[in-house]
Amino acid sequence: MLWCRFEKDGLISYGVVEGDFVLAIHGEPWSQHRRVEPKLPLASVKLLVPVMPPTFYAIGSNYKNHVIERSKVKGFKEPKFYDRPRVGYRANSALVASGEDIVKPKDSGPRFEYEGELVAVIGKRCRNVSPQEASACIFGWTIGNDVTERDWQKNDPTNLRGKNADTFKPMGPFIATGIEPRDMTTTVRLNGETVHRFPTGNMLFSAGDVISDISRTNTLSPGDVVWLGTDELPKALKVGDTIEVEISGIGVLRNRVVAEP
Amino acid sequence: MLWCRFEKDGLISYGVVEGDFVLAIHGEPWSQHRRVEPKLPLASVKLLVPVMPPTFYAIGSNYKNHVIERSKVKGFKEPKFYDRPRVGYRANSALVASGEDIVKPKDSGPRFEYEGELVAVIGKRCRNVSPQEASACIFGWTIGNDVTERDWQKNDPTNLRGKNADTFKPMGPFIATGIEPRDMTTTVRLNGETVHRFPTGNMLFSAGDVISDISRTNTLSPGDVVWLGTDELPKALKVGDTIEVEISGIGVLRNRVVAEP
Repeated sequence: MLWCRFEKDGLISYGVVEGDFVLAIHGEPWSQHRRVEPKLPLASVKLLVPVMPPTFYAIGSNYKNHVIERSKVKGFKEPKFYDRPRVGYRANSALVASGEDIVKPKDSGPRFEYEGELVAVIGKRCRNVSPQEASACIFGWTIGNDVTERDWQKNDPTNLRGKNADTFKPMGPFIATGIEPRDMTTTVRLNGETVHRFPTGNMLFSAGDVISDISRTNTLSPGDVVWLGTDELPKALKVGDTIEVEISGIGVLRNRVVAEP
Repeated sequence: MLWCRFEKDGLISYGVVEGDFVLAIHGEPWSQHRRVEPKLPLASVKLLVPVMPPTFYAIGSNYKNHVIERSKVKGFKEPKFYDRPRVGYRANSALVASGEDIVKPKDSGPRFEYEGELVAVIGKRCRNVSPQEASACIFGWTIGNDVTERDWQKNDPTNLRGKNADTFKPMGPFIATGIEPRDMTTTVRLNGETVHRFPTGNMLFSAGDVISDISRTNTLSPGDVVWLGTDELPKALKVGDTIEVEISGIGVLRNRVVAEP
């Protein structure tokens, strides 16, 4: 099933997507709710970021090829693999929906890169859970683009600027339930051309592993999101580019890059 | 004026504090709202964290003595001062209200420390603002205790465990408006004994400086909080301790330390 969050006539609601239509719900997808007639044409609503997370987690270095290639770029002798997930935080202020623009800041450099990622959306409170229990706390899956300014990132241990400037976190379009990462493929297209295609489930730490690790210290709550990293070596984005991240079963997260006015 | 957020009979509301009473409001303190009669005795409501921030910012190394003393602890030859605010993120999942317990995790060590901090609560959207303009975007002030497990922090570049484990972020009790940091004093009491007293406004980067710096890349929104750092060298907390952070004009943030069950 596909879920969305949308605005219509100034009101914001979650909804169920059925083909080219959306049915609003009263409540949240992961808790008690009821459907509200009538069905609205999907084209008549504004899709929003599918959830504004209470806490926004993201993990780096979670696919083998990405770690190897990024280690080369950084000039490391050996790729740097970690024995525990490297979990950090992102800022809600950076979130934009599918279809909204990524704004390339005036003072950003040429190493302005996308990262297409699977995102787990939490559906149940959990603390101190095993990877198996953690998997059962996932409500569904969406797509994230972890846009990064690499030169800013180098001198920014907290990633405030490098990964969290306004519009650097496209997320959406939908939350899909009833599917599993092992059956997904991530495809990244730059201006319509496929630049990466990789098995989404090919992670070093599975979603269950990552959430279990977080839950050793932090209670996860419904609506929290955990971005799960990207594979391959992302390329640079220029003003005017369109970047698409497609994950099978979820949809296509599509954003254009514009210059800061 | 003092504002709070509270729960009464299962309903959550912001309110205005007047002496020993609270008057609920419909809406949010920083936007259009109206007061709801009757006045409730403050003792009859459960005080909550005064705001759940859309984005939760915190700055380190913001008082001279703290930087000098922490540099000694870390074994640095020279204290490490920064030429720009060191802004990072904290997790909403770690927030607890005044009066709630700080839970010392089973596997935490003896270097389990408080940090009493002034917190700016944002009232207006702002982006790319000067320090003066940034100051005008602050709705009011509350108090934070940036509890830290120092041994965890050493090996935790993202502060996931060291600063963001459950209950590590007491905040409250109230949001005060119409006061200025230059007129405030921060007093920290451990089991009733004053262990630190410092001029709250004695920061290396003022609230306006910090918010202006964040706003160069990130839009700040109403309800966002910016924790502004602590002075002096905090001491360790043990199970059974009561830690109080008082800032003049705001109130007392009081929490007991309990063992993880």
